[in-house]
Amino acid sequence: MQPLLRQRIETTSYKMSDNQEQKAFIAITLPDGSIRSFPYGSTGLDIALSIGRKLAQDALAITFEGKALELDTPLTESGHMEILTFDSPEGKEIFWHSSSHLMAQAIEELFAGTRFGAGPAIEQGFYYDIASDHRFREEDLRAIELRMIEISKRESQINRREMSREEAIEFFKTVRNDPYKVEILEDTLKNTPVVSLYEQENFTDLCSGPHLHSTSKIKAVQLTNISTSYWRGDSSRESMQRIYGITFPSEKLLKEHTARVEEAKRRDHRKLGAELELFMLSPEIGSGLPVWLPKGAIIRNELETFLKEEQRKRGYLPVYTPHIGNIELYKRSGHYPYYSDSQFPPLTYHDENGKQEQYLLKPMNCPHHHLIYNVKLRSYRDLPIRLAEFGTVYRHEQSGELNGLVRARGFTQDDSHIYCRPDQLVDEICNAIDLTQHVFATLGFSDVQTRLSMHDPLNQEKYGGTPEVWEQAEKDVTEAANRMGINYVIGIGEASFYGPKIDFIVRDAIGRKWQLGTVQVDYVMPERFDLSYIGSDSQKHRPIVIHRAPFGSMERFIGVLIEHTAGNFPLWLAPVQAIIMPLGEEIHAYAKSIHEKLLHSGIRAELDLRNEKIGKKIREAEIGKLPYMIIIGQKELESGQLSLRRHRTGDEGLFTTDSLIDKLKKEIAAKTLIL
Amino acid sequence: MQPLLRQRIETTSYKMSDNQEQKAFIAITLPDGSIRSFPYGSTGLDIALSIGRKLAQDALAITFEGKALELDTPLTESGHMEILTFDSPEGKEIFWHSSSHLMAQAIEELFAGTRFGAGPAIEQGFYYDIASDHRFREEDLRAIELRMIEISKRESQINRREMSREEAIEFFKTVRNDPYKVEILEDTLKNTPVVSLYEQENFTDLCSGPHLHSTSKIKAVQLTNISTSYWRGDSSRESMQRIYGITFPSEKLLKEHTARVEEAKRRDHRKLGAELELFMLSPEIGSGLPVWLPKGAIIRNELETFLKEEQRKRGYLPVYTPHIGNIELYKRSGHYPYYSDSQFPPLTYHDENGKQEQYLLKPMNCPHHHLIYNVKLRSYRDLPIRLAEFGTVYRHEQSGELNGLVRARGFTQDDSHIYCRPDQLVDEICNAIDLTQHVFATLGFSDVQTRLSMHDPLNQEKYGGTPEVWEQAEKDVTEAANRMGINYVIGIGEASFYGPKIDFIVRDAIGRKWQLGTVQVDYVMPERFDLSYIGSDSQKHRPIVIHRAPFGSMERFIGVLIEHTAGNFPLWLAPVQAIIMPLGEEIHAYAKSIHEKLLHSGIRAELDLRNEKIGKKIREAEIGKLPYMIIIGQKELESGQLSLRRHRTGDEGLFTTDSLIDKLKKEIAAKTLIL
Repeated sequence: MQPLLRQRIETTSYKMSDNQEQKAFIAITLPDGSIRSFPYGSTGLDIALSIGRKLAQDALAITFEGKALELDTPLTESGHMEILTFDSPEGKEIFWHSSSHLMAQAIEELFAGTRFGAGPAIEQGFYYDIASDHRFREEDLRAIELRMIEISKRESQINRREMSREEAIEFFKTVRNDPYKVEILEDTLKNTPVVSLYEQENFTDLCSGPHLHSTSKIKAVQLTNISTSYWRGDSSRESMQRIYGITFPSEKLLKEHTARVEEAKRRDHRKLGAELELFMLSPEIGSGLPVWLPKGAIIRNELETFLKEEQRKRGYLPVYTPHIGNIELYKRSGHYPYYSDSQFPPLTYHDENGKQEQYLLKPMNCPHHHLIYNVKLRSYRDLPIRLAEFGTVYRHEQSGELNGLVRARGFTQDDSHIYCRPDQLVDEICNAIDLTQHVFATLGFSDVQTRLSMHDPLNQEKYGGTPEVWEQAEKDVTEAANRMGINYVIGIGEASFYGPKIDFIVRDAIGRKWQLGTVQVDYVMPERFDLSYIGSDSQKHRPIVIHRAPFGSMERFIGVLIEHTAGNFPLWLAPVQAIIMPLGEEIHAYAKSIHEKLLHSGIRAELDLRNEKIGKKIREAEIGKLPYMIIIGQKELESGQLSLRRHRTGDEGLFTTDSLIDKLKKEIAAKTLIL
Repeated sequence: MQPLLRQRIETTSYKMSDNQEQKAFIAITLPDGSIRSFPYGSTGLDIALSIGRKLAQDALAITFEGKALELDTPLTESGHMEILTFDSPEGKEIFWHSSSHLMAQAIEELFAGTRFGAGPAIEQGFYYDIASDHRFREEDLRAIELRMIEISKRESQINRREMSREEAIEFFKTVRNDPYKVEILEDTLKNTPVVSLYEQENFTDLCSGPHLHSTSKIKAVQLTNISTSYWRGDSSRESMQRIYGITFPSEKLLKEHTARVEEAKRRDHRKLGAELELFMLSPEIGSGLPVWLPKGAIIRNELETFLKEEQRKRGYLPVYTPHIGNIELYKRSGHYPYYSDSQFPPLTYHDENGKQEQYLLKPMNCPHHHLIYNVKLRSYRDLPIRLAEFGTVYRHEQSGELNGLVRARGFTQDDSHIYCRPDQLVDEICNAIDLTQHVFATLGFSDVQTRLSMHDPLNQEKYGGTPEVWEQAEKDVTEAANRMGINYVIGIGEASFYGPKIDFIVRDAIGRKWQLGTVQVDYVMPERFDLSYIGSDSQKHRPIVIHRAPFGSMERFIGVLIEHTAGNFPLWLAPVQAIIMPLGEEIHAYAKSIHEKLLHSGIRAELDLRNEKIGKKIREAEIGKLPYMIIIGQKELESGQLSLRRHRTGDEGLFTTDSLIDKLKKEIAAKTLIL
């Protein structure tokens, strides 16, 4: 997100058209649908004030007819208006963009002669690229933070100023002595006659905006990191220092943010994955290739068994396919050109006759499944056919993109391809949505957002298939989403190259969003693989394919699940479900008999026979997030009972072994969530 | 097996030593341990006759002190003797070797001027390579067969004759006009002063023997195939025609053999795999890469679930590892040089910094598991650690070697590595043997042979580890085998490069042998991967690794299981367990309700609602080898019952849906075998 390259805000609204001159009032439609009349030239701030003092205080900018504008821009037309606060993504973006300017001003005041490259808002905060002989260090960040707050307290106005490109070049050459902005003006903006500058006190930057109307809104600052970048992202150009930060309209929000960051660190699946011995990444095997340790493998296996059983009930058929395939297969599917950047290179060999063959580590399972569909002639009566596989695929992500389980080079998709007739399509999409929702609900993801990812008709050449086929596919997807009564947003240009998708985005326990499951409609592959069935009319017809994966990838899903649960897995997933702690050696035989019984009942139990204090054993079990602790002493031995303790909640009272097994088996079968 | 290259039979026994001249009798020890006295110079045939007429008739040759000799060789020393009949592998080999000579004689009589290359016995029969201008065809084979029987009926004596190499060269140059034998004499046998020839009637061949003493033993002949070969197997030398055949000492045995061959064809897993829709091989994906179709995938999944549960009970821990690994890993393990011929070529890429990395499709799972062991410091208390994975591996077998599921380029091992202390090793080998035996018994392989595969001390350089380590490992393996009370043979030189193995060879329903499961001891990898544990003495120690796989490979095992069962799988494995056939449309609703109930109970049931005659439906279900047919008509509808029919055995009487479910669930749970 380079602010200088962003679409320029329409600024011609300053000039009144002949038609508008007549009007003394404009009609503003608010998000709740109400229409109110305001004097011609009213600003967003005026309108916010008319609604309420609090709203006016929180207001950062507005959107007018979908375009973001500053709070003090006079409105000269009737239209739909929305007031942006820090609660909205657009509000945050403007807030953080202005914060990057504020940081640059502070740096300029503290380190005279500093020059600036790009300074955009990012997903969490902002950065600015800095050209300076000074090597910025941690203590500088604290000083800059203080200066930013000082400037903010001066409540400086942020003003937009427009000038011709030539004037701007002159300004940056002579007044600001800034070669970077001059380069942008002479290069990127060479066809832009009028450009905008934003000013606050003595600081001026070339910028398309929009911005806050005052620095005073920025009340809490945290500069987080210094890294290296290059002018215009080009490693052959001069190196710059990039300073990252995040700001908030209140100290309270910063504190909440800091707590969230700490909580996220605490829940980091890479950290918990190592502590709880769930998985490892081994440089000796290769980057981005997770290895499932026994405890993680148990979780994965339980999840796979759960989905296999759900799929069996819903008429899916299992298949297994190889992890490699002849490269021609992917050329035929059309995946090869689309994925060539993110594939492992082909494996080339010559057979006994010297003939060269090339194989790809399979980047997806689809072509293999299509060949299975084609193994025999299908009748309309055979459809739908639902092929399912836990298929491991390999994609060569850039090493900088890798992130534990969440972004890996080898991952296992809970992949399925449903081959159906056109009259079955909407039903089958609904079934796939239903299964996905069931999976999320079972795993405790209660906040699920849905996006219908459609194609971008302005870029039709990016996609396979005809516009007619796309129209039908998007109609079917929308109909299914409506029938399932799901709330969704529409994402134009988010479709796959072969068809529209329904993407499921879950919000985890600490509010972060993760795209997990997907349901995709495909009219293109049936053509490419010449898939067909004999209809009731005895003619050949094309089936439609649905690609679907509720988990998405087992690795990514479990990575998110670890962070969502902070490693406190529900009992059915817990790698060790109960640990038995006898108080003294004379209890060992009794402890072993309970252990045997639990194992025999299929409960994953461990026995802690170490010669350690019970307090230490309990503490370690709590750290290990083991759901149940079974403590047995002389009293329990005599009464043939056991004391049960639950992780995080403590004492659960006395049980017999049989009543405990009953309790645990019920909790496992019910897949009870941890609250 | 080139007969000319085989070790020459000791023939000096014809000459008497000073010591032996004194003796009028020799003492012969028979296989039952009895010792009997025979006149000096008695032959094997004399001794057989003294035991019984039938044995003398069946006798083909003898072994004396472990060496095979002809039946008419005079014995001049005391020693152990065994009479070889067609029942023994050695007897068969001699029989088929003499049969190749008989075929050559017949061909020479029919096609004058024919010359012969190599003509050995093979596993099933024999072949002879032929140099001739005549192009041999199917009808020639029938004529040769008739002539062979004619010669046999003449009851010609087969005589061994010895001469100096020079005499032999002269003989083959002038009498036989055979440049091939001259080449062998001048080349391969150039350091052999005395060579042997075998003669029958006008036919003479250079051969080390031994042979039958008469052609009359060969009573039934079937020539099976003609193919192309090269003189001395060298494609730069002249092309020859290879004729394959098999012979028997009776017509009855030939008939039995023909029936077995037919039965094997009927059971061929590639044929049944296609007919029963279990798996496919797709040239579009690649040679030797089986794809599991739904019905085969169900069988594989059931077998995996069965073994997973057995492993859980026995304390194995699941892991999942990637299908690729950095090539350095395999160099470290030492697998790379040993397997380099049968590996897929490495996949080479350059990372963002231009650094080259090479990955191998993993040819085995061991190195990955060793890294998991090494993920943390292990204590003696943690051992044994049993890591288990259904790990798919890839090996680039020559395309001529590929055979459906039984020999594939991608296959899934039910692999496990057990890390244990020396004092636990024998117990752990025993546990692994026990599990393997349990798996075979459950799947109905009742005839299991065991081979202790030891290293060859004369080729110590072929192996990792010191002679001391090998001695210990072989001692431990033998102790475990003895403790488990298994009968075994010892295979010298059959060990893996890292340690001795116990190989399990099953005999299938039609008598063929297949090597399936394996238990291997490894003292070498712990060194190479620097595996260690802290002992009770607080010092570092090396664990020992056991590699084991009861199935061996899922593909190979299921391939053998298909042939063993002829596709009649036990109910728990049957892809479709029951099919419901309503008699008429008015029964459809009732049929559907039964179908629902069966599915809900986890029984894999199908519904045949086609408008076809019941006879046809039953016939198709029989061909599809579906275990149970549920037939419901008006009578069953009214009584709320159903008629049950079992595949191959027919009517089972009336059941209610609940009693049927109960019956089927019991049969599934018991994993009842099909007899």
